[in-house]
Amino acid sequence: MRIGLLTGGGDCPGLNAAIRAVVKQALGEYGHQVIGFRNGWKGVVDGDVIQLDRSNIRNILPQGGTMLGTARFHPHSAGAMEQVMATFEAERIDAVICIGGDGTLNAASKVADEGINVIAIPKTIDNDVWGTDLSIGYHTAVNIATEAIDRIHTTAESHNRVMVVEVMGRHAGWISVAAGIAGGAEIVLAPEEPFDIDRIVKFLRHRHRAHANFSIVVVAEGASPAKGSAMDYEVQLGQFGEIIAGAVGERVAHEISERTGFDTRLTVLGHVQRGGTPTPTDRILGSRFGVAAVDAVTAGKTNVMTALQNEEIVLVPLADIAGKVKPVPDDLLRVARVLA
Amino acid sequence: MRIGLLTGGGDCPGLNAAIRAVVKQALGEYGHQVIGFRNGWKGVVDGDVIQLDRSNIRNILPQGGTMLGTARFHPHSAGAMEQVMATFEAERIDAVICIGGDGTLNAASKVADEGINVIAIPKTIDNDVWGTDLSIGYHTAVNIATEAIDRIHTTAESHNRVMVVEVMGRHAGWISVAAGIAGGAEIVLAPEEPFDIDRIVKFLRHRHRAHANFSIVVVAEGASPAKGSAMDYEVQLGQFGEIIAGAVGERVAHEISERTGFDTRLTVLGHVQRGGTPTPTDRILGSRFGVAAVDAVTAGKTNVMTALQNEEIVLVPLADIAGKVKPVPDDLLRVARVLA
Amino acid sequence: MRIGLLTGGGDCPGLNAAIRAVVKQALGEYGHQVIGFRNGWKGVVDGDVIQLDRSNIRNILPQGGTMLGTARFHPHSAGAMEQVMATFEAERIDAVICIGGDGTLNAASKVADEGINVIAIPKTIDNDVWGTDLSIGYHTAVNIATEAIDRIHTTAESHNRVMVVEVMGRHAGWISVAAGIAGGAEIVLAPEEPFDIDRIVKFLRHRHRAHANFSIVVVAEGASPAKGSAMDYEVQLGQFGEIIAGAVGERVAHEISERTGFDTRLTVLGHVQRGGTPTPTDRILGSRFGVAAVDAVTAGKTNVMTALQNEEIVLVPLADIAGKVKPVPDDLLRVARVLA
Amino acid sequence: MRIGLLTGGGDCPGLNAAIRAVVKQALGEYGHQVIGFRNGWKGVVDGDVIQLDRSNIRNILPQGGTMLGTARFHPHSAGAMEQVMATFEAERIDAVICIGGDGTLNAASKVADEGINVIAIPKTIDNDVWGTDLSIGYHTAVNIATEAIDRIHTTAESHNRVMVVEVMGRHAGWISVAAGIAGGAEIVLAPEEPFDIDRIVKFLRHRHRAHANFSIVVVAEGASPAKGSAMDYEVQLGQFGEIIAGAVGERVAHEISERTGFDTRLTVLGHVQRGGTPTPTDRILGSRFGVAAVDAVTAGKTNVMTALQNEEIVLVPLADIAGKVKPVPDDLLRVARVLA
Repeated sequence: MRIGLLTGGGDCPGLNAAIRAVVKQALGEYGHQVIGFRNGWKGVVDGDVIQLDRSNIRNILPQGGTMLGTARFHPHSAGAMEQVMATFEAERIDAVICIGGDGTLNAASKVADEGINVIAIPKTIDNDVWGTDLSIGYHTAVNIATEAIDRIHTTAESHNRVMVVEVMGRHAGWISVAAGIAGGAEIVLAPEEPFDIDRIVKFLRHRHRAHANFSIVVVAEGASPAKGSAMDYEVQLGQFGEIIAGAVGERVAHEISERTGFDTRLTVLGHVQRGGTPTPTDRILGSRFGVAAVDAVTAGKTNVMTALQNEEIVLVPLADIAGKVKPVPDDLLRVARVLA
Repeated sequence: MRIGLLTGGGDCPGLNAAIRAVVKQALGEYGHQVIGFRNGWKGVVDGDVIQLDRSNIRNILPQGGTMLGTARFHPHSAGAMEQVMATFEAERIDAVICIGGDGTLNAASKVADEGINVIAIPKTIDNDVWGTDLSIGYHTAVNIATEAIDRIHTTAESHNRVMVVEVMGRHAGWISVAAGIAGGAEIVLAPEEPFDIDRIVKFLRHRHRAHANFSIVVVAEGASPAKGSAMDYEVQLGQFGEIIAGAVGERVAHEISERTGFDTRLTVLGHVQRGGTPTPTDRILGSRFGVAAVDAVTAGKTNVMTALQNEEIVLVPLADIAGKVKPVPDDLLRVARVLA
Repeated sequence: MRIGLLTGGGDCPGLNAAIRAVVKQALGEYGHQVIGFRNGWKGVVDGDVIQLDRSNIRNILPQGGTMLGTARFHPHSAGAMEQVMATFEAERIDAVICIGGDGTLNAASKVADEGINVIAIPKTIDNDVWGTDLSIGYHTAVNIATEAIDRIHTTAESHNRVMVVEVMGRHAGWISVAAGIAGGAEIVLAPEEPFDIDRIVKFLRHRHRAHANFSIVVVAEGASPAKGSAMDYEVQLGQFGEIIAGAVGERVAHEISERTGFDTRLTVLGHVQRGGTPTPTDRILGSRFGVAAVDAVTAGKTNVMTALQNEEIVLVPLADIAGKVKPVPDDLLRVARVLA
Repeated sequence: MRIGLLTGGGDCPGLNAAIRAVVKQALGEYGHQVIGFRNGWKGVVDGDVIQLDRSNIRNILPQGGTMLGTARFHPHSAGAMEQVMATFEAERIDAVICIGGDGTLNAASKVADEGINVIAIPKTIDNDVWGTDLSIGYHTAVNIATEAIDRIHTTAESHNRVMVVEVMGRHAGWISVAAGIAGGAEIVLAPEEPFDIDRIVKFLRHRHRAHANFSIVVVAEGASPAKGSAMDYEVQLGQFGEIIAGAVGERVAHEISERTGFDTRLTVLGHVQRGGTPTPTDRILGSRFGVAAVDAVTAGKTNVMTALQNEEIVLVPLADIAGKVKPVPDDLLRVARVLA
């Protein structure tokens, strides 16, 4: 078999582990060939390919990013889809493994509709892909965010400050909740629970009077105030529809500073959350997904996504996950709250 | 309510997160009191107690070890059990939360038999407690072992060596398999699959001839050769029945060196695997277990262990887990094998 | 003797190592007493003191921040200075050890003018204190910044982007140059060498045409364009005269994006640079400074600063360092340039 | 010019930074050619060469080990030296840059005697090369050792144990002293100061009675008891004259355990000390040495070693350093002692 392989959307740690596993399993276990497309769907459209063998995947396991490159590009237009099909035909692709988030999985669905055999592998540091307990990249992002909160903690305490830390998480607050619990944050603001700035201010005032004179507030970039609450703010989008980094954190920090008079500072973690060497969890997840994707392709199971459910790797139909977001469950939100 | 709290057995990262969560949830949510026993069951026998409040748990979240101290001590003798009961009575303990592994859970069961309300929280870097997907400490140990393998990798490659790395894992090979996959080890030896030194040697010879001139071999301390295979070795125990660190790694390294002539070196990770700041996963796990244990105590659910199953915290009867070991599942062992 | 001790200015990793060393050496070696002032000079003015002994310094060595607290407060006013003297008299202080940067050393000088015996210990993540090869905090900041650049590197490469990273460094570009070299940055902008945006753009265009399609640009917050060069920008100051974080990075990223059309992103490291566990170098430096400060006090050598020169700890008269900034030497700037 | 380049002796982090700098500076600044020899002097003898250009050094800066490979091989024999000269002639080498420790510098001296232009770059995690404040690899080793001691600290404290940690350092105790101070060790045993086990035992007994019930003892592999002191032990050498890892640590742990009755455990760090990503300090040092070596070659300055002295890169005649060891200075040994 000739298997196409691409990584799409934002890069994150663990992609190379998946690429390596796909190549090792395809070549070593089954004798397939693997054709990589550079820079996601853009490489498919452009016919920018590279035949992958052992030499290409040497030493990539501990490295962040993707050796195939990636791009935020979607073959939505009619012309683009034709070029996709033309490339697949020219390269005699029997099936394509797409590693990506929302947008990539979407495009994968459309390509599947055209009759191409598709296997998707979920990655997103937001961890909001439906149908899988974990997506590649999330675990490393939580590590990085927690490490940053640990660092900021000592400054907060030494200076008696309120430190606001904005982390990623557009539709779901996984990073904010996990890093908030792990970092011992006093307040976590996630998209799942619109916040009330009055209650936050009241809580901080009480805490600084009674217990301590510093606080950590973790804010997901997609957090927003409850309707009818005191703070007037809507999620800010950039020209490509992406969330403007720092916007909500800046507003929250400003309100806290104004209303409490506490010395309040903002840190926007930004791109560092998606870089660097993957944690063992992301390496293992990528490795398992890669092996499972090749097993699935070989067994003729397509138009599915590899997923982790209850510690096992399973296959989920692409049709089942479209348009859904996996929110942080209530019990985890509660833990973040009660440990404040 | 007056809740007793102790940590028993070997220390590991994440214990302080659980202690902190127990104290915060007990005092903040329910107004209970928490009485800590120092150095595990020894502190119960000796009546060595400390009343815990917010000031005791300040800044302990990111710290390894246990602020309560621990000891490998079990109140097996009749006299010891009497003293346990006497201390609980003197301290008017309504229920006791025991954080520990095998031995501690065992003792907890016995104490429960005496009519004491017990809630157990599982910790063991070996991750082999039955009934829970994760135990406190395991995740950090995998991180440390993977980091060590990453380091050793560059030396192996620069010097064309076979590097043997012995990690913990007496009855189950969780650390060896996870760190082996994450670190890109060529060979992983776990207790679940007795090994054949002839096949290992054959594999290494082939690899060094065909692909590369270095290899990483990860060995769990409890790994042993298959019966009837070429290597004659039995797991070495110390005076307290514990596994002698380095024993199997030394034997494996010796055999590889002798039979292949390759420059072969051994690293025994030892105690570093159980120390240092916990990963976010262990901090969150400890926090969730601590909150759940207090919730359970308050709701009158006792003689159970908090457990993680399918990403949720559940309660498992202590009776169900006694004497069982949770092995690494076959599909994970296979991933370690196919990615070699 | 009764020795006063305070930490002033921005917090950073390594302060606790110095505090611990002062206490250990003063109590253990000489039998002095150590009186800590909380929150820098503010604690002196307010008479907010704590007698320090072994129990206070337990476990603080690996922790960031300062267990004494700190504040950006200077006893400049006449009234403040009177209160300083009153507190010193009330506490029968024989000499005071001040750990701090620019502002604190300045205040120390003034206090010395009033007849108080003063020993200063230099700390600043900017590393620009004259007379010492290293100041506490700098080394850890370089580590954090390099780690961030490593992370950002994989994203830059995967996405074919220009990544601009703004780091601290107001008057001197030590962090930017060190982290730039260590992180393999293509361009480093430091206050020592006003930059020409035209040359930067030209360099990037050439590089992306000839060698690679990504680049890392590290910008010190105090960097500014050369007079007469194409970019019109002046360093932005906040209400307390501090540099506005992100201002120059944003401008540089904007210009590069506009002029080259390359996908360009900004990361502002901010507060994470001054937090977290200190590197061994900062722990050792803090420890050596602390021991040397107590030795100096005991020997009657005052109105000096402990300094590292040619790997040895020496004492430098406070008068010699006032108003001076230690710039990055030319040969280091050249290394950053030639390795681009 | 055609410049030869090799790395010899044990690998360590920072070698790749030096290789990268040599290639960048040689090609980019001067238009020289760089011929790499694989596996140290062995590659010279065997004529195993690779012409190095930009593509070879991509992404190697943050990686441990050496992309050229290395070996503990010295061209001492007459025949070997002839082959060295033959290879240099065949490859038309104008000068050779040798990155290595003791053995490599020695060989470099001999090659220089044969009329070859040689520039040496010092590397050794032991940091005992005379004439330079730092050698490549030392700084990362201290980081790793300190991190390990931090981890072991929490276990020591939780279990009331004496933890003995053996680190590298044959002739000089740089790692033990630096990591001992940074890790807050109670006792540091270095080759510079032969130890008296009676005094150690007395100190530990006193400490455990008066202050704390745990201790950390850091032992350099080359430490040995004072003549006439109670412990009878000589440094153990292997078949190649190398120190047997763990030998002295085991003996010290045994004696402490026997004489005090304290629960005492040994950790031997071993190979992990020389692996993994280099610290910024080692990357910068390697980069500066690499640039300086090419500058020196180009300027016709040969038979010298690049060195760091008083923060500057200088050149030291090879003849001046032969046979000398740089010990830890007394004032640093004292800091380790007084902070115990």
